[in-house]
Amino acid sequence: MKGKLSEERRQHIQQDYSRGFVAFCGLEAVRVEPGFLEAGVRIREEHRQQDGFIHAGLMATLADHSAGYAAYTMIPENHRILTIEFKMNFLRPAYGETLVCRAKVIKPGRRILTCESEVYDQRPEGEILVVKNLTTMASVPESELKKNV
Amino acid sequence: MKGKLSEERRQHIQQDYSRGFVAFCGLEAVRVEPGFLEAGVRIREEHRQQDGFIHAGLMATLADHSAGYAAYTMIPENHRILTIEFKMNFLRPAYGETLVCRAKVIKPGRRILTCESEVYDQRPEGEILVVKNLTTMASVPESELKKNV
Amino acid sequence: MKGKLSEERRQHIQQDYSRGFVAFCGLEAVRVEPGFLEAGVRIREEHRQQDGFIHAGLMATLADHSAGYAAYTMIPENHRILTIEFKMNFLRPAYGETLVCRAKVIKPGRRILTCESEVYDQRPEGEILVVKNLTTMASVPESELKKNV
Amino acid sequence: MKGKLSEERRQHIQQDYSRGFVAFCGLEAVRVEPGFLEAGVRIREEHRQQDGFIHAGLMATLADHSAGYAAYTMIPENHRILTIEFKMNFLRPAYGETLVCRAKVIKPGRRILTCESEVYDQRPEGEILVVKNLTTMASVPESELKKNV
Repeated sequence: MKGKLSEERRQHIQQDYSRGFVAFCGLEAVRVEPGFLEAGVRIREEHRQQDGFIHAGLMATLADHSAGYAAYTMIPENHRILTIEFKMNFLRPAYGETLVCRAKVIKPGRRILTCESEVYDQRPEGEILVVKNLTTMASVPESELKKNV
Repeated sequence: MKGKLSEERRQHIQQDYSRGFVAFCGLEAVRVEPGFLEAGVRIREEHRQQDGFIHAGLMATLADHSAGYAAYTMIPENHRILTIEFKMNFLRPAYGETLVCRAKVIKPGRRILTCESEVYDQRPEGEILVVKNLTTMASVPESELKKNV
Repeated sequence: MKGKLSEERRQHIQQDYSRGFVAFCGLEAVRVEPGFLEAGVRIREEHRQQDGFIHAGLMATLADHSAGYAAYTMIPENHRILTIEFKMNFLRPAYGETLVCRAKVIKPGRRILTCESEVYDQRPEGEILVVKNLTTMASVPESELKKNV
Repeated sequence: MKGKLSEERRQHIQQDYSRGFVAFCGLEAVRVEPGFLEAGVRIREEHRQQDGFIHAGLMATLADHSAGYAAYTMIPENHRILTIEFKMNFLRPAYGETLVCRAKVIKPGRRILTCESEVYDQRPEGEILVVKNLTTMASVPESELKKNV
């Protein structure tokens, strides 16, 4: 992925990742590169369903938010990212102690960015792919943000 | 939607809805019918992003979980619902005090159930559609559940 | 759906619908309204698979193209519609003599339009829903079209 | 991808690929491996839209059918593949002389197979990714096929 990212901007994006609902859920960004972001979450009891499996909603939050911030590395500083749509396939139940998500931009358009996220369940015997996500993001100038409401 | 639901089962499903991650997020089922479920959430500060909009991940949790429990009304008691995949379109940002989700089963197969969820943002001036979701669910006998892992 | 459509433009859209690949496949628009389009296709042997079921690709063409032209009713005349993405759920196999698609715009944004298409299989005993489609379209000024390539 | 494929079955699948609607559209399988299939189509005038771009419906047919046959390499001989759903992102318009699709099974379940297809536009200056597709397939015993209708 072409593009550059100042160290200052890289750090800003990594810290900015964990706010609001995402901080509430305990998600943290661990690696930020141009067009790429890796994030993770240590699983707590409240992330699970009654059957012990990790809830699809937590994985959706992780996949969507990571894709959004991967896209955020590729847009002007006065733009914001909005999710237009995403689709997730749950390949197998997740039940480990940690989830890791790797999100990348596969088409960085000026207005529309397409991203792909993969979520891995980190089990004692190694990590395994549990979610495949495909997302469409909009890059919107801050000045236009309110008009969409 | 054809089908029947004993009052006991209806109550079980409504109460069972809010456990684990879903209880953590504050989602509650308010109406349960054969092939249909309505749920809602009173928005708290931790449900929002930094810009004040409600996070897509919370809406995904609401849409997915409600679709799953709508499907749950239509399967044998010794089966469980697993999400195979879903897709969500975010039509406009949500920022109100309450979200409501109405989920219905549009094709109740024996193994595969297709569901549709809509999320509405309840604003002072009235509710407005913010999310359209299409979900594929699997009905899996409890005895087979572990094999999928 | 609010909006107006001159009779001239309505006729232009209905005729313009059947060109290129769509004419090759035999699809025809039968009703055009602001934010809505109905189209159909009389099934020929070459539309089927070896098992006699109608091919998913034909239904995708019908659903996508109809959604695109429903969107086309809502944009300036010097804009074009490009499909950003779509998702289709195949609820049951289709095998009848005719397919009908009803497409509507559920969110007509200035740049992004979200549409929903339903495909019905017309069988001797009545029509039945076979495909549910959710599509994101871009409205692009003709002058910008080449830049996306 | 683990698994084996007899030479006889491999040839059967490759030839079986081009029938009905797929033969009508001119698609051909060029490589078959366990869990993988590559197919292509030489673009004809009737594959294009009025603006010269290749129609999304043709690419959907190519992506879906190739995913289905990639799945077909991994199921018992008396089973059939049905598409449950798919989602496609169109990253950029396609306008070249040939399209190539590479489809692989990313989760080969007993009943449900998840596949990923990529469509490449072969332009004079090299091939470029134009479509990303994520598909859910059902493996259905021939004996149960009629019951789904």
